Amino acid sequence: MSLFVVGTMAYDTVKTPFGQRDWALGGSATYFSMSASFFTKVNLTAVIGEDFNGADLSMLEKHGVDLSGVIRAGGKSFHWKGEYGFDLNEAKTLETHLNVLMEFDPKLPEAYKNSEYVFLANIDPKLQRKVMDQVKNPKLIACDTMNYWIQSARDELVKTLARVDILVINEGEARQLADTHNLVKAAGIIRGMGVKTLIIKRGEYGALLFHENEIFAAPAYPLEEVFDPTGAGDTFAGGFMGHLARLGDGKLSQTKLRQAMIMGSVMASFTVEKFSVERLASLDRKEIAERFHRFKGLTSFEDISGEIA
Amino acid sequence: MSLFVVGTMAYDTVKTPFGQRDWALGGSATYFSMSASFFTKVNLTAVIGEDFNGADLSMLEKHGVDLSGVIRAGGKSFHWKGEYGFDLNEAKTLETHLNVLMEFDPKLPEAYKNSEYVFLANIDPKLQRKVMDQVKNPKLIACDTMNYWIQSARDELVKTLARVDILVINEGEARQLADTHNLVKAAGIIRGMGVKTLIIKRGEYGALLFHENEIFAAPAYPLEEVFDPTGAGDTFAGGFMGHLARLGDGKLSQTKLRQAMIMGSVMASFTVEKFSVERLASLDRKEIAERFHRFKGLTSFEDISGEIA
Repeated sequence: MSLFVVGTMAYDTVKTPFGQRDWALGGSATYFSMSASFFTKVNLTAVIGEDFNGADLSMLEKHGVDLSGVIRAGGKSFHWKGEYGFDLNEAKTLETHLNVLMEFDPKLPEAYKNSEYVFLANIDPKLQRKVMDQVKNPKLIACDTMNYWIQSARDELVKTLARVDILVINEGEARQLADTHNLVKAAGIIRGMGVKTLIIKRGEYGALLFHENEIFAAPAYPLEEVFDPTGAGDTFAGGFMGHLARLGDGKLSQTKLRQAMIMGSVMASFTVEKFSVERLASLDRKEIAERFHRFKGLTSFEDISGEIA
Repeated sequence: MSLFVVGTMAYDTVKTPFGQRDWALGGSATYFSMSASFFTKVNLTAVIGEDFNGADLSMLEKHGVDLSGVIRAGGKSFHWKGEYGFDLNEAKTLETHLNVLMEFDPKLPEAYKNSEYVFLANIDPKLQRKVMDQVKNPKLIACDTMNYWIQSARDELVKTLARVDILVINEGEARQLADTHNLVKAAGIIRGMGVKTLIIKRGEYGALLFHENEIFAAPAYPLEEVFDPTGAGDTFAGGFMGHLARLGDGKLSQTKLRQAMIMGSVMASFTVEKFSVERLASLDRKEIAERFHRFKGLTSFEDISGEIA
């Protein structure tokens, strides 16, 4: 099934305790589509500047990402500069240059309008709705957001949330959006806004899925070397949505959602092993399968409740 | 199999965003033994002051905890005063009155010396060794420690660690002890000190087990109401060691250790639901079995690695 993503394509300058990359390929839609491309065809919409590197576009196309919805505008590409300390869970933003993103007005090519799976990465919630309006008959819509929109455009965001099936946000954002610290309570409040299914990402601690009356806890893969957490959340979303799109019937079951949560975690665990999309670019399906199997090993135990009661 | 614990029995004054308790029953050995008592006979050694409440001792005895190793000394009982913000992962210590703990010189009753399972809660690492010297033929020794000993008595602590099978510490302590941020690396360094099996507690994020070449990630149970995290770590250790002592052959397998990790997490999830040991005091085995089963629901997913490769 075809999977559509709208988000950013960017160049990032990132410093971590383990090194630095200047103007490395980044952006939510880039990470998402690279990740999802291992599972399904991806239709990408984003805006890039005159400076965007043709080799980066070719690399995405080689991964089966359709770029016919990518608009090249006059000006420079979106550029983010950030730094991580040893606590890799939290980025310190040093500079944000929106550049061409300021004028982003997503218009979907005709072929994209039949996309069945839709991911609205973190952009202005008004634009997220504008994109939804263009997709004819989506089977499943998921979105991300960030603290900036929660704070400055809450009403617009709430309107968007009422129209999506799945929200994928991080722990701090969930607390901010619900205005409560306890995550289970926060999940209840956010789902009250109309989001049926909620995923709360917790960085190196994994992610929680709230669906129907059940909670699923996916761990993060414990890695000895984490070089750069940039893009981990978008890569997670790409693996998650990519897996659901591959299965393809648009129905959400606990079984499929849980597999998708692990697939997202698998993909994110690769991204952080190198800078930028370097690790995703060299990845193959055998490595993905092997790590998925390792997640099983990481979490499995015998249910001995019968012995205790 | 008999399980021995040495640690503190205390009165805590605790303030959380959800209320306050003054001079409530606390202490590492109290939480540990209440928790372990659901699975096995517990022999407890600690020092208490003249002010220690007879009703609290009776409550522990009613749970099958042997108190013949509890020494009543002249003076006041250990008293800790602390406060938690909405981030319940971190306590702010306001006052610590060691009182009778200053002179604690653990001497085990004869009957205790045959204990097969041993837990050395967080006390001076020199005292931890002194206790080990008195146990004749232990099958399994586990210990806890804290930042204070890591900083002020590292050499003594390292001597203790070389003699224990399992170390149970929290995330921050693991990083401090290993002097490295990455937990997988930290685990390697700590196990290099002679600890065969390492458990790293991560509060609301669960706990990690490092045993042989495998890592197991146990989630914490997502609770809508967390009233007071005091004692969660010691309760975890009590459920963990209690389960292993109940199984009883002293051999550590992945299967048993993983079950014990979940049992520890189950017990800790109850403790935090109320202040002090209130929830443990009212708990029954049916509730324990039911929550163990819920942990299975919280973590289970299908291994679909075969479909992907």
